Amino acid sequence: MPRPLLLFALALLAGLAGRPAHAQSAPTNVILFIADGTGPATITMARDYARDQTGRDALALDAYLTGAVRTFATNSRVTDSAAGATAYATGVKTYNGAIGVDTLRRPVGTVLEAAEAAGMATGLIATSRITHATPAAFSAHVPNRGMEEEIAAQQLAQGIDVLFGGGRANYLPADDGGRRRDGRDLLAEAEAAGYRIVASREDFDAGLQAPVLGLFAPDHMAYEIDRDPADEPSLAEMTRAAIDLLDDDPDGFFLMVEASRVDHAGHGNDAAAHVHDALAFDEAFAAAVAYAEEQGGTLVVATSDHEAGGLTLGRAIDGRAFYTWKPEVLARVTSSHGPMVAAIVEDRQSPADVLRTFAGIEDLTEEETALLEGARTDGRQLNFVLADVIARRAVVGWTTGGHTAVDVHLYAAGPGADAFRGTLDNARVGQLVAEQLGLDLTDVTERLRQPDETD
Amino acid sequence: MPRPLLLFALALLAGLAGRPAHAQSAPTNVILFIADGTGPATITMARDYARDQTGRDALALDAYLTGAVRTFATNSRVTDSAAGATAYATGVKTYNGAIGVDTLRRPVGTVLEAAEAAGMATGLIATSRITHATPAAFSAHVPNRGMEEEIAAQQLAQGIDVLFGGGRANYLPADDGGRRRDGRDLLAEAEAAGYRIVASREDFDAGLQAPVLGLFAPDHMAYEIDRDPADEPSLAEMTRAAIDLLDDDPDGFFLMVEASRVDHAGHGNDAAAHVHDALAFDEAFAAAVAYAEEQGGTLVVATSDHEAGGLTLGRAIDGRAFYTWKPEVLARVTSSHGPMVAAIVEDRQSPADVLRTFAGIEDLTEEETALLEGARTDGRQLNFVLADVIARRAVVGWTTGGHTAVDVHLYAAGPGADAFRGTLDNARVGQLVAEQLGLDLTDVTERLRQPDETD
Repeated sequence: MPRPLLLFALALLAGLAGRPAHAQSAPTNVILFIADGTGPATITMARDYARDQTGRDALALDAYLTGAVRTFATNSRVTDSAAGATAYATGVKTYNGAIGVDTLRRPVGTVLEAAEAAGMATGLIATSRITHATPAAFSAHVPNRGMEEEIAAQQLAQGIDVLFGGGRANYLPADDGGRRRDGRDLLAEAEAAGYRIVASREDFDAGLQAPVLGLFAPDHMAYEIDRDPADEPSLAEMTRAAIDLLDDDPDGFFLMVEASRVDHAGHGNDAAAHVHDALAFDEAFAAAVAYAEEQGGTLVVATSDHEAGGLTLGRAIDGRAFYTWKPEVLARVTSSHGPMVAAIVEDRQSPADVLRTFAGIEDLTEEETALLEGARTDGRQLNFVLADVIARRAVVGWTTGGHTAVDVHLYAAGPGADAFRGTLDNARVGQLVAEQLGLDLTDVTERLRQPDETD
Repeated sequence: MPRPLLLFALALLAGLAGRPAHAQSAPTNVILFIADGTGPATITMARDYARDQTGRDALALDAYLTGAVRTFATNSRVTDSAAGATAYATGVKTYNGAIGVDTLRRPVGTVLEAAEAAGMATGLIATSRITHATPAAFSAHVPNRGMEEEIAAQQLAQGIDVLFGGGRANYLPADDGGRRRDGRDLLAEAEAAGYRIVASREDFDAGLQAPVLGLFAPDHMAYEIDRDPADEPSLAEMTRAAIDLLDDDPDGFFLMVEASRVDHAGHGNDAAAHVHDALAFDEAFAAAVAYAEEQGGTLVVATSDHEAGGLTLGRAIDGRAFYTWKPEVLARVTSSHGPMVAAIVEDRQSPADVLRTFAGIEDLTEEETALLEGARTDGRQLNFVLADVIARRAVVGWTTGGHTAVDVHLYAAGPGADAFRGTLDNARVGQLVAEQLGLDLTDVTERLRQPDETD
């Protein structure tokens, strides 16, 4: 080798040695964020809101956008959260309502189960009931998402190291403040199996130890806009705590974090609750990326299962198209629709007073007042009148109380992030997550389908 | 150097030599697609439609998605096409309505002008009037997008090698079938300056030669759904023809291709016209990428300026949320709304007959029939009644006749594509396009602002 060429080769070697390890190696850990019901417009909404209120120019998510995900289910162009989460958890597309099962209702192995089988530490976080569709699809196999008592029982049997969320009622019998019809007290069973049971902010702050089952509410946890930090931890706090508990495992960890209630606010066309839960998602993502960048071996992937609400930023009002939308209107709103509806329906406050107090709205039209008065005893109808009053002023549109088909964003950071580029099918994203951890889901599927030898 | 290490170094060198050239080198040519009024939902809509009608699993665009673009203007969270295109053309954010000028109404240099100054070949393609906001922002500097006669004059003086689009009327005097109030015949002036003038499909097919000014319609070219191939070339055909004419230049070329009328169909809430123009965009993008992959030195970037219509795939109908949308309804529609409105308003055909003939709709409700009958003489009102009749059956939502703020998709292929990753500002995309070609826009800006020495 001529000397100049040799020196060049040595320089190349030195250059390669200096490349960050994550550009070449596989991740040890994966943190998968699923922001339920978070479409492209939600991301723009959260950024615009943050820019307006804090001057911050970008979301933490923004720099890590790598692609988009097409989300249709096998039986509909518009997916629900069960089929969407099953695709991410198992790499298999299925029908709306399915939890960890294929179109023939057979169980399919999940990345969480494969991680457990490989000796990795695992965790699930949700701000909904922990038995709700998204966390359920990683930890249970039932033909219908409504089977939440069964989901809780299966979930507890998985040996998951960290479970944080709401939904305590599905873990407790009906005669002990719960909803279970089989009389089982899964909290007691969990404690007997070695779980530390956490049920309050105080417990959460008192020092955690895995395995831990932290259920902070009987039903869903609070919307971020309504959350009392003295009662419940934030999504970012739960994410950081889970990482602390999981990252000692030499075999690595898999953690799924669901920002569950962006979706619920979309269903309710509740713009203020929607944007605050989206920002809580961004904050939790930032916490995970901060850990990943320090730790070096962690892949963080973030996406959504589908859009919710048919949200548009800008809309026509009374036939006139407006080229604007107004985050400052949402910044004056101090609660989700729930407390407003309760104040009107249960506490019999006047709708005008409630909108003044909770949303800073003092310019109700006669028509709006009449609509609000007409809905005073019907919480569901009242919710959508409130939604319209606020949306008209914020110049945002909603076209549905359900989901829509638009592709959702895909973000990735850390080793393996390059695999998540372009427009991917949701099932392909699930396969890629398992592949990045070197996990074989088909082994788990085969084991799940073997006749139970203990029978 | 120990022998094994030496061999390893040689292997590394060989490996690097084998990397595709485009991973390291700068592009010689750039083809920039702007799909006007094409939001994320439009992309999903086009893919779902293609899957339903042809079984094709993905758009040509899908594999090349690299990020998203935030699109706000300096004076509004919802941009118009003028501010949006100026950001892409000049790297400078500006106010709605601005064509190639900053917020102080001073001219700013465009990538097309810088390419001309560097001796590169240049081209502009649009399916709107070639004097419309998007092509205008690359080739003119005026404070208001409505100044289309002035835009035509400036555009012609740029020395652009290929101009294909509509808008012939802005090039001709009022007494010669045009709209110009200054009496100038820009077609005659162009011919005198050496341009070949093309005005028909026949001319287009007869053999082209640069410089060429091909204006195929007095106003906008036809929507793709209405286009008669005997009259007008498709966007993909114009793209291929332009590439053929431009790629001889040893200094490379810059070509901007606008899929202009996805936007117009969004404004009109015309779902069938919208999806067909979006598919025409995808086909033209595929043609450019096919060229780029063969040629090797061409960067193809595709994006949009903003969303239009507040489109959602899935919606509530009469208060009930539907988890579906139906491309098959749009597949039965055989024209844009324009011919339907003309048949009712001008030809006095019955709305029911027109919807049966043009859209295969035979199940009008009494309420719909009454609304259609009530709008028989008002084209604008009739358009939105037709839109609603079709949208309810296709289960798509529209919230506005204007634009919305949602981030738009960003696609890139070829050398330099890696620069277009993540969530970028629209002005940053403009800067990156110029940087990839090694062009300095500030030089052009300085020249534009010098006092005109010929005065």
